[in-house]
Amino acid sequence: MVVSSSERRFVISLGCPDQTGIVARVSGFLAEFGGWIVEAGHHTDTTTGWFFTRLEVRADSLPFGVDELRNRFAGVAADLSDRAEWRIWDTDERRRVVVLVSKEAHCLHDLLGRVGSGELDVELCAVIGNHPELGPITEAHGIPFHHVPFSKDPEAKADAFEQVRVLAEKHDPHAIVLARFMQVLPPELCERWAGKAINIHHSFLPSFAGARPYHQAYERGVKLIGATCHYVTAELDAGPIIEQGVIRVDHTDDVSDMVRKGRDIEKMVLARGLRAHVEDRVLVHGKRTVVF
Amino acid sequence: MVVSSSERRFVISLGCPDQTGIVARVSGFLAEFGGWIVEAGHHTDTTTGWFFTRLEVRADSLPFGVDELRNRFAGVAADLSDRAEWRIWDTDERRRVVVLVSKEAHCLHDLLGRVGSGELDVELCAVIGNHPELGPITEAHGIPFHHVPFSKDPEAKADAFEQVRVLAEKHDPHAIVLARFMQVLPPELCERWAGKAINIHHSFLPSFAGARPYHQAYERGVKLIGATCHYVTAELDAGPIIEQGVIRVDHTDDVSDMVRKGRDIEKMVLARGLRAHVEDRVLVHGKRTVVF
Amino acid sequence: MVVSSSERRFVISLGCPDQTGIVARVSGFLAEFGGWIVEAGHHTDTTTGWFFTRLEVRADSLPFGVDELRNRFAGVAADLSDRAEWRIWDTDERRRVVVLVSKEAHCLHDLLGRVGSGELDVELCAVIGNHPELGPITEAHGIPFHHVPFSKDPEAKADAFEQVRVLAEKHDPHAIVLARFMQVLPPELCERWAGKAINIHHSFLPSFAGARPYHQAYERGVKLIGATCHYVTAELDAGPIIEQGVIRVDHTDDVSDMVRKGRDIEKMVLARGLRAHVEDRVLVHGKRTVVF
Amino acid sequence: MVVSSSERRFVISLGCPDQTGIVARVSGFLAEFGGWIVEAGHHTDTTTGWFFTRLEVRADSLPFGVDELRNRFAGVAADLSDRAEWRIWDTDERRRVVVLVSKEAHCLHDLLGRVGSGELDVELCAVIGNHPELGPITEAHGIPFHHVPFSKDPEAKADAFEQVRVLAEKHDPHAIVLARFMQVLPPELCERWAGKAINIHHSFLPSFAGARPYHQAYERGVKLIGATCHYVTAELDAGPIIEQGVIRVDHTDDVSDMVRKGRDIEKMVLARGLRAHVEDRVLVHGKRTVVF
Repeated sequence: MVVSSSERRFVISLGCPDQTGIVARVSGFLAEFGGWIVEAGHHTDTTTGWFFTRLEVRADSLPFGVDELRNRFAGVAADLSDRAEWRIWDTDERRRVVVLVSKEAHCLHDLLGRVGSGELDVELCAVIGNHPELGPITEAHGIPFHHVPFSKDPEAKADAFEQVRVLAEKHDPHAIVLARFMQVLPPELCERWAGKAINIHHSFLPSFAGARPYHQAYERGVKLIGATCHYVTAELDAGPIIEQGVIRVDHTDDVSDMVRKGRDIEKMVLARGLRAHVEDRVLVHGKRTVVF
Repeated sequence: MVVSSSERRFVISLGCPDQTGIVARVSGFLAEFGGWIVEAGHHTDTTTGWFFTRLEVRADSLPFGVDELRNRFAGVAADLSDRAEWRIWDTDERRRVVVLVSKEAHCLHDLLGRVGSGELDVELCAVIGNHPELGPITEAHGIPFHHVPFSKDPEAKADAFEQVRVLAEKHDPHAIVLARFMQVLPPELCERWAGKAINIHHSFLPSFAGARPYHQAYERGVKLIGATCHYVTAELDAGPIIEQGVIRVDHTDDVSDMVRKGRDIEKMVLARGLRAHVEDRVLVHGKRTVVF
Repeated sequence: MVVSSSERRFVISLGCPDQTGIVARVSGFLAEFGGWIVEAGHHTDTTTGWFFTRLEVRADSLPFGVDELRNRFAGVAADLSDRAEWRIWDTDERRRVVVLVSKEAHCLHDLLGRVGSGELDVELCAVIGNHPELGPITEAHGIPFHHVPFSKDPEAKADAFEQVRVLAEKHDPHAIVLARFMQVLPPELCERWAGKAINIHHSFLPSFAGARPYHQAYERGVKLIGATCHYVTAELDAGPIIEQGVIRVDHTDDVSDMVRKGRDIEKMVLARGLRAHVEDRVLVHGKRTVVF
Repeated sequence: MVVSSSERRFVISLGCPDQTGIVARVSGFLAEFGGWIVEAGHHTDTTTGWFFTRLEVRADSLPFGVDELRNRFAGVAADLSDRAEWRIWDTDERRRVVVLVSKEAHCLHDLLGRVGSGELDVELCAVIGNHPELGPITEAHGIPFHHVPFSKDPEAKADAFEQVRVLAEKHDPHAIVLARFMQVLPPELCERWAGKAINIHHSFLPSFAGARPYHQAYERGVKLIGATCHYVTAELDAGPIIEQGVIRVDHTDDVSDMVRKGRDIEKMVLARGLRAHVEDRVLVHGKRTVVF
């Protein structure tokens, strides 16, 4: 659901060790102040004994603002467990997104279209490309484009990544989207952007990690190809998965057909994964995600 | 999830007008007695202002049995609204299912296989056929089979339906499954079995209601065919939908190919719909269902 | 497969009454001149006794050009039947496409992206809108945009359609795409553009023809929503279907969620249908299509 | 399409190096004798330059029987290439199938249902189990069941495999189906049954080969699980893929839910793969398959 500003909400996300009474404690706290829960998800991972919840509350149903809600909820969370992890998003705080691209246009076109038509309600702050080709279409949508050339020389590459980092962090982004960026982030950047950097990999992971996945898929003779949207971690294509999708192929599809068909899945999977992320629907726990 | 008896649970389903504090009230009631919520779903239909919830509680976490839980929950529900509708299922009470068939074997084979292998944990009490063909395979699975011949003469037909009714109701079933039964239930039986009689229709409703849906689909030249599992109501193929599925077809598929491909979808959609029903996951509201 | 000019091909499409030896006659004709068949599809509709074939031949494998091929093939076709219908497309003749839009942006964005990135190898000649909103993004892609205002006054509306007709036909287009145009073409234009005008309807036809299909779908409580790409005929939303797709919805999706999820299917189904059309893969026979 | 004996057909499959005129040569040969082609598929693998075709001809349209057709077609094939590989199946020769099982019932139940209802028109000669549990249901369908106990002792295991081999080969089967057999065939049996032994693996290969794939999938946190039907080769789970399918899972699905949902895909994928195999629709080339 697209949250419009007229339907301002506070979105509470919480993870903590499971125990009796968490739902009652949290919902009781909200009810005490007349909080109107619009959407609620609960989940217990029985293998790890971890409890997850996400609640959307109408902002105008509470007698205080988001800061006071955070203050008060901190007490609730502390009561539940000193290992509790929680955050509260005020939907009036529009999500800021930075996109990293190379030459492949389809994911960027798709994101620009979704943002431009209002379907994806985020602030697209900047697009950064290691090639200049996607500049004009980005700017036609009124979005700033930065060209940061990359070379294979390690030092120059490190410099380029530092430029990308500075350009991206200037916007204090909630999401840094690698929209077919084709460059492997250095480990320190993976660490720094943990839980924020989102990649779209053009295979159904864990199959065909790494380079040229459609070629790998063709060689293996699979009957479905896919795409995976995941958080970036230092281990290549091994981060927590947010969303996946597949599409049928058959013997009449050569690698170029797979590339073409795969694009539709990449676009859709990235858009769904990004939407879940910016709506604060994704809770990461180890290598797995809960997507409410 | 298949609920085994060693994991006895009480499953609370509730629908009532939406208001602030319902989640808190219900979860608070459970927390008061140490009730351990294993699974929880909440939903508000904003067009009708109706709230729905379904909670699974570990039976051994409560200090009382299901009768006392029902007694006490009646008070909670009455507090919330005099229009509240609720029920509590003790998973130790195994679901009883009666299946009505004609000659088409695939849905029955599938159900027998699922029950026989323990995947669908219900008591399959009886199969009633208006033709005798499916008797032997039913009995090979150790399930009683009753042959009730149907004729076109209205009076004889009414008699036959009365026989079916008596045979089915003897088992006080939670579900009466029309597994390609091919006979239209009379309105009084639809009324009597409201919310219990489940049909599998071999089209993606509302397209192609009524007879020979695959022929209709072929004539129209659709590129996907489907199946719909729904509650039976007096209006033919118009009851609340529980589950639907589709499969691709193309110009190489004639009607007999559609029939064959469609069977796989019918089986799967019926099995999913029936599972949701017997696990008390389906809440009906007007023509729509909430499936937790 | 995107046919690049370096892989020039002649694409032969033929429909005629079925009889023994058609494949041999057509392939024998090509073999006689060294014609290298790159892709071949054959189909017989057994209900109507009609045979369909589509052959892609490498242009450089034949000793003559497309005009001579047409001359010679006319003889082959005439031998087979005086009811034979055939056409030959020279892939060097780039397909010209005109797009009609209203305010809904997603299908246009998607087509612009596919054409701009070279994925859909057509000449997008013009976009015509009955509202001006989509002009800037169209022009940012270097495509001419024409605004033709529509009113409800019948005479003014007829004038507007006449303007659209003139603007579109100036390009002698192979396809006129109604990309969520929201205006019902008058019967004479349906007739005139038969087999060229392609619509995307935002439902899984024949369910929910006409206005506000997502509202209809919501009311009915379906568990999947869809989109249908079809040729425009005088009977509303009843033309031959080229492609369809669906996506799951559940009780948490209100109408606006359905609209959003449906867009992804509309875009994809329209793009696939249009690709099949411009690659001359669609043979219409009555209300049904063969899509090779 | 299920080929009934009243629609007797000869099915020609051919693979050979690609060259101009193959389609003309083969279809010309058939046309010469009045052969009525009911279904035809052609494909060229451009990476290997190999051509594949499969033709269904009405048996009663030819003036000779299958032996004479084989004699004459041998000449056609030899003319095309001395590397040509071909076979002709007379659909009057019913396919014989042997099934190997362990304790998991769902794939066997599904196959028994399809054969019993006439949907899959094969002769199910025997079921061989390394456990006795699935004997009664097999015999209820009138199919012989053989229990061959397996132990971990290498010599005893080799003896058991030899028993299985003898029991299976007694029927000269066209297909030996490993329907969740849970035993790894020894290399010499893989070699001996190459192109005949068909396995269903409960993952979307190449992901999660080997043991406990659902556990692997759960650990990795994938959002779709799948099943793969493939020919058995000496390298575990690496044989040519015939068919694959997937189904969505999410964080609410634990391993036992994945097992349950996966079963539906396993059954369907195995049934589709086996159907393609027994209808002689699968041509293997290296690690890839063409499925007409």
